[in-house]
Amino acid sequence: MPELTQVVDSEVITAYATYAVIVVLKMMLMAPLTSYYRMKKKVFANLEDTKLAHPVEEPKFVRVDPDVERVRRCHQNDLENVVPFVLVGLLYSLTGPDAATALAYFRVFAASRLCHTVAYVLPLPQPSRALSWLTGLVVTCCMAYRVLLHNFRL
Amino acid sequence: MPELTQVVDSEVITAYATYAVIVVLKMMLMAPLTSYYRMKKKVFANLEDTKLAHPVEEPKFVRVDPDVERVRRCHQNDLENVVPFVLVGLLYSLTGPDAATALAYFRVFAASRLCHTVAYVLPLPQPSRALSWLTGLVVTCCMAYRVLLHNFRL
Amino acid sequence: MPELTQVVDSEVITAYATYAVIVVLKMMLMAPLTSYYRMKKKVFANLEDTKLAHPVEEPKFVRVDPDVERVRRCHQNDLENVVPFVLVGLLYSLTGPDAATALAYFRVFAASRLCHTVAYVLPLPQPSRALSWLTGLVVTCCMAYRVLLHNFRL
Repeated sequence: MPELTQVVDSEVITAYATYAVIVVLKMMLMAPLTSYYRMKKKVFANLEDTKLAHPVEEPKFVRVDPDVERVRRCHQNDLENVVPFVLVGLLYSLTGPDAATALAYFRVFAASRLCHTVAYVLPLPQPSRALSWLTGLVVTCCMAYRVLLHNFRL
Repeated sequence: MPELTQVVDSEVITAYATYAVIVVLKMMLMAPLTSYYRMKKKVFANLEDTKLAHPVEEPKFVRVDPDVERVRRCHQNDLENVVPFVLVGLLYSLTGPDAATALAYFRVFAASRLCHTVAYVLPLPQPSRALSWLTGLVVTCCMAYRVLLHNFRL
Repeated sequence: MPELTQVVDSEVITAYATYAVIVVLKMMLMAPLTSYYRMKKKVFANLEDTKLAHPVEEPKFVRVDPDVERVRRCHQNDLENVVPFVLVGLLYSLTGPDAATALAYFRVFAASRLCHTVAYVLPLPQPSRALSWLTGLVVTCCMAYRVLLHNFRL
């Protein structure tokens, strides 16, 4: 009987694993970026956190800041888009798609999320962020369509 | 050596892929719905976004609106429930469950999340939303229980 | 042709399934905990929810409470960290890692998230929560590194 690790050797699944990890790492990077802004601007969500930037707990540092909220919204948008891509992308890769098409989807999605993050954090003028978000959404929907076509069973 | 795409042919995994994609698409639909409410009510989270609905950037459109927040809470609840279902459901499908039971789980979960969304967005009186949320939670826990029973190794 | 369920029999994948389900269940537990605090302190996000704790709808119970927000931030942090662990961990398990190393990663991650939740909800003084969060992040990054090393294809 072959082991699962031996059957997972297709070009598409290898590329999927690479891009899935890249976009998840990009998403995870938003957390240290939020921490950086919190420390730099002394803006915290919990009283006990203020001691990370101040000798004693300081209630006035428990506040909301527009720059911190901007990074947090970007992180939230990643959760709402990157996680569906990774979940749908796995099922898509298992449908045995054409390698060139699959690679194109993965590359376009990863590029769209990098653009989205830059457009959100800087920020760039709209509709740059709206278009990069929409591009990623369309890629995930295309992959979802193929999964449904290939596996449809209600 | 067989390819992974050839071994993924069971009835349960096919049904899993179908329902996983359906509930992920339903979750992703909340983002355009939020955008629709934002445009319709001219309520934005970022100053640069106001230009999508107004000739020049307009600070007074950067505000919080109860209807937009309602859709966003529904989206957040999907993230908190649909993502666990898809993750646990994959591992559950790999335990080789009875096809009729698995299909029942998938159908009940998908139906519960459709009811949840309708109950949240309209809104319907409680406990309709609470019960639909609880139904989905119970299904995911049942699948998690089987995965633990089948794979337990600490 | 073997079925997928027959090839999924490695020690690492069994352990992965166990720990993935444990941390997802822990994450899902935050929702009932939030509900508990909402009922106990009569703090709701939607007007229709107030009827769950009061004979008639009561607008003054639609408010924000620091204790409820604390549990919600903990839940959000789980979404931002547990979901990446489960996604990256699956791809990591498929790279055929050393079983002892994989088990160490899974155990350290699960322990770090339990500590994080305790440190957040009680709360414990910092840097207990920051360190438990960082530990989980480092584990996920180590697994991501191996996936990239093993599958790199851009």
